[in-house]
Amino acid sequence: MPDREIESWVNGSPGQQLSVRDRGLAYGDGVFETVRVTHSGPVLLDFHLQRLRQGLRQLALDHDWEPLEAEIHAYPGWSEPGVVKLVVTRGEGGRGYASDGVRGPNRIFTHHPAPAYPPHWAVKGIRVFPCQTRLAPNPLLAGVKHLNRLEQVLARREWGAESFQEGLMRDTDGHLVEGVFSNLFMVQGQTVVTPALDSCGVAGVMRRWLLEEFSRHGWQVVSGTLGQSSLQLADEWFFCNSVYGIWPVREWQQRQWPVGAVTRQAQQWVTDRWQL
Amino acid sequence: MPDREIESWVNGSPGQQLSVRDRGLAYGDGVFETVRVTHSGPVLLDFHLQRLRQGLRQLALDHDWEPLEAEIHAYPGWSEPGVVKLVVTRGEGGRGYASDGVRGPNRIFTHHPAPAYPPHWAVKGIRVFPCQTRLAPNPLLAGVKHLNRLEQVLARREWGAESFQEGLMRDTDGHLVEGVFSNLFMVQGQTVVTPALDSCGVAGVMRRWLLEEFSRHGWQVVSGTLGQSSLQLADEWFFCNSVYGIWPVREWQQRQWPVGAVTRQAQQWVTDRWQL
Repeated sequence: MPDREIESWVNGSPGQQLSVRDRGLAYGDGVFETVRVTHSGPVLLDFHLQRLRQGLRQLALDHDWEPLEAEIHAYPGWSEPGVVKLVVTRGEGGRGYASDGVRGPNRIFTHHPAPAYPPHWAVKGIRVFPCQTRLAPNPLLAGVKHLNRLEQVLARREWGAESFQEGLMRDTDGHLVEGVFSNLFMVQGQTVVTPALDSCGVAGVMRRWLLEEFSRHGWQVVSGTLGQSSLQLADEWFFCNSVYGIWPVREWQQRQWPVGAVTRQAQQWVTDRWQL
Repeated sequence: MPDREIESWVNGSPGQQLSVRDRGLAYGDGVFETVRVTHSGPVLLDFHLQRLRQGLRQLALDHDWEPLEAEIHAYPGWSEPGVVKLVVTRGEGGRGYASDGVRGPNRIFTHHPAPAYPPHWAVKGIRVFPCQTRLAPNPLLAGVKHLNRLEQVLARREWGAESFQEGLMRDTDGHLVEGVFSNLFMVQGQTVVTPALDSCGVAGVMRRWLLEEFSRHGWQVVSGTLGQSSLQLADEWFFCNSVYGIWPVREWQQRQWPVGAVTRQAQQWVTDRWQL
């Protein structure tokens, strides 16, 4: 729990409520970021802001960036450990999909306690659920952390909290994409492999940071189209996001994996950088 | 414009605002209906309510139906011509996709003026834009009028209001699906044809009513997988929804169609029933 309550902001002022005519509610017409805040401050905030700006561009929602960025930096939530969620919607408009005359964007910033994941998930690894809900391909929206997230909601409902810690999602062609709330990496021999996200999936900021970090340390890094069978070739694999860091996979479909040396190394990079 | 303003309702009481922690905003986790209201009352309300209930079931959001239905019937918007929009979200919850502990559902009812479409669109027909934005397949969500509508928002932004009145959308395999805010029918010889909506698209209530009406009048009615070339085989074709009724297609990709006798007949059925 946070030491003190941080109030939410709506359009730059404290507030808990949004107009019922907001297009984020009507159509999921907007984007969001969830930023981990530690005692040292926000984690990967520059990458979060770059993705936010890119998402706004992809939705043709690119209003003036500088005032938005300034408002984000002014939010009091960055000084308190937990998670800051930033939501930017197209704004308030009439009925109908056309966005002429919409007043916006609307900006909603909220502060939440950090999730209380048991530490042994990161140490001993997690058990992964095979989700039946598929991710549908849409190149125009691929990678963007937009507000249309029913696939994740349905996938997350497939398993109870007790037995599995993350679920693996495939696209409608059966290719590996990501976890429900994380990205996926495999280690195969001397190569680090992660699914390409050019037709669906969320391009996570921790994924981006790890891709750069692996490259910097001399690893061959491949982002590509991967079938489910490629998991059988993995010496080790793990999920990652910017809130919890890295969770090694311990069990998937009756097969066990040890927590591998490469995964431990990547966890060390994250710990050295942020004490996550 | 309506003769008098009808206030919006949030959870059974007059209100304009919703919690920023509502999951409709966070994830598009909910469904909606837009119901035309004429001087004679709501159009196809029974079909709208059946689809709403079915959508809630498909999202595993099936709380008690009877109180929700009673609240819908009690909304003052039904007595004033225009459009009533009903939104039902999973409710208010914490951060994260898991829906345990969510307090809900939240119900938002709003009243809007009827759109002022020029009457000649229904009389002389419309010009249809070929949307590049594709509809992605997801059988779990197909047919449901849920709040994840970014594909429609992006498609609607492809053309300006002046030149085209509706846009034709295909799925990622190139099959015909629907308009951006309407369903699609073709007449081919003695057969009435409409795209199947088992992998994507919204199962419109006017589409359902017309399918039943055509059958009742002895037409052979086919709902199937249709390529774009099937439009070339159409003697006549039209779009429909429960707000505007039926718009014949006059022009598509440099080809012209006359407003056909079957389309006129269907328009007559709608007019006889509702004076739309």
